[in-house]
Amino acid sequence: MLRETEFIKNLTKGLKSADSADLLQGIGDDCAVLAGKESAVTLLTVDTLVEGIHFDPVRHPPYLLGRKAAAVNISDIAAMGGMPRFALLSVAAPASCDQYLLDEFMAGFLSRLDESAMSLIGGDTVSSRELMFSVTVLGEMAEDEIIYRSGARPGDLVWVSGFVGQAAAGLQLCRRLSEKQDKWPELVQAHLDPSPQVELGRILAAGGLVNSMMDISDGIATDLAHICVASSVGAEIDADSLPLSPALEEVAVRLNFDPLQPALQGGDDYQLLFTAPAANSTFLEQQVKERCGRDIFCIGRIVAGKGVQLLTGDGRRRDITFQGYEHNL
Amino acid sequence: MLRETEFIKNLTKGLKSADSADLLQGIGDDCAVLAGKESAVTLLTVDTLVEGIHFDPVRHPPYLLGRKAAAVNISDIAAMGGMPRFALLSVAAPASCDQYLLDEFMAGFLSRLDESAMSLIGGDTVSSRELMFSVTVLGEMAEDEIIYRSGARPGDLVWVSGFVGQAAAGLQLCRRLSEKQDKWPELVQAHLDPSPQVELGRILAAGGLVNSMMDISDGIATDLAHICVASSVGAEIDADSLPLSPALEEVAVRLNFDPLQPALQGGDDYQLLFTAPAANSTFLEQQVKERCGRDIFCIGRIVAGKGVQLLTGDGRRRDITFQGYEHNL
Repeated sequence: MLRETEFIKNLTKGLKSADSADLLQGIGDDCAVLAGKESAVTLLTVDTLVEGIHFDPVRHPPYLLGRKAAAVNISDIAAMGGMPRFALLSVAAPASCDQYLLDEFMAGFLSRLDESAMSLIGGDTVSSRELMFSVTVLGEMAEDEIIYRSGARPGDLVWVSGFVGQAAAGLQLCRRLSEKQDKWPELVQAHLDPSPQVELGRILAAGGLVNSMMDISDGIATDLAHICVASSVGAEIDADSLPLSPALEEVAVRLNFDPLQPALQGGDDYQLLFTAPAANSTFLEQQVKERCGRDIFCIGRIVAGKGVQLLTGDGRRRDITFQGYEHNL
Repeated sequence: MLRETEFIKNLTKGLKSADSADLLQGIGDDCAVLAGKESAVTLLTVDTLVEGIHFDPVRHPPYLLGRKAAAVNISDIAAMGGMPRFALLSVAAPASCDQYLLDEFMAGFLSRLDESAMSLIGGDTVSSRELMFSVTVLGEMAEDEIIYRSGARPGDLVWVSGFVGQAAAGLQLCRRLSEKQDKWPELVQAHLDPSPQVELGRILAAGGLVNSMMDISDGIATDLAHICVASSVGAEIDADSLPLSPALEEVAVRLNFDPLQPALQGGDDYQLLFTAPAANSTFLEQQVKERCGRDIFCIGRIVAGKGVQLLTGDGRRRDITFQGYEHNL
């Protein structure tokens, strides 16, 4: 199968270098960046969700699916530190598609936009054999506040904004209908209705607190590898530092899997992954605590070299570069 | 089947009125319009092409398909009078999809962008069972030059920028492999590799020459009906005035169809359809001739009332409102 990273590499190869003065960042980060009014920029991102690959219409309530289709794109804006503003939606649906499903999807999609004070400004709808939603989101921010993937430096520590592996464990629960999903609602919700971290992204970017950032959509193993490649550095993750929720630990025992697996390789968490100079750590934690009342978690460090290494408590290290999730339900 | 116009109507119903100062036009025209730098605006449009609905991968060479995927979106920018600048591309492809097809598609897509001095700035690629391309295009123009669908007034004449029905006849030829397609290359090309009318759109808009405009993607019967609804007017088309190419007339005889059918109801022509005060007609024709060396064709008039009427030489009139093409190969 054509892997996304390969295809994007192929795409990028085919492109001439951007010769447009107002194109500040083309393919290769969470969003494209265009110069806008005064010192503002426009952020642009597109993501497509395909039935059977990115969602299971039988198990994903359409209202929540609509919310998720918006959320995953809003998350790309959050990953640069931007403010999401507008969305365009392209819906491909079979002739047989239930009108109720589409209405619910739209209601959910709009509710998610509404929570971020965004407007739906365009779209189209086409016939297809399988259900597919393609979403374009525009955001805005000040040019000098943008946090790219490419800013990580040796000496930075690596942070995540919350529990990891939640969504992957939630997906496991949704697949096993015999399991009592309501016992771990936060895991199921992480999978069905993820929360993009817009507020935290704004605080980190506007405060100049971090050197590089992205959102966790394909798992830390892959997403941190993107930061490493873009920044020409390597990274070490301390297995014992990964923030695992009690719910994830319980489900891992119940379903008999290693909780590190979803934490490192599970996709769809949409937490932020960022790096900041070690010297700033206390200030960074304080600022986040003060301004949005939450904890962040240091999980490792940026080093010279390349690739992402996992260090375990027994002193072993394992290369996990790009070992994340490939969407394929 | 859910018709696009219905779905968009449903979408629009669900939306609160745009409360954002910089959103000048949301859903309902060829593009969304956002306030940009100084008096400039950003135009945004998205369109999705689905295998088996919008294209037949067996008969559509992938290089030309790439060009068309770009062209149909560029055409939406042209339909407001804008300048296309940037594109985002989302590709959904089966695991079994030929790499050659994707490479050719990309080469064609980029060649079309290149002809309009545009850059590809973002995208994603996902797995799916059927091949699908979703394209977002951004354009720019001066705010006071935008031509909306809603500006048609009784007393305007209705114009098209070139032959109509070409693409629909070309599609017929491509379907009948026994026909000698190379006898009518302009029809086959109109279907496989349409030309968006960017230059003409710019001239018409920048010169303040027209009151309303859109591009012909679903056939005059439907596209003129969009203008009528948006402008709260009616329209009359003179059947004898429709510009039909000699090639279309020949193929209509050969394949035994009425050439008016593709001319009115055929989709995918991507000519411009526009209205202008009758008093300006000579000036309009002269300006277009002088500045891009081409003819335009007057095909009818805007009247008070509603709906689109076809007037035939024998004095009969027929309601053809929204009788255009529904994409479904």
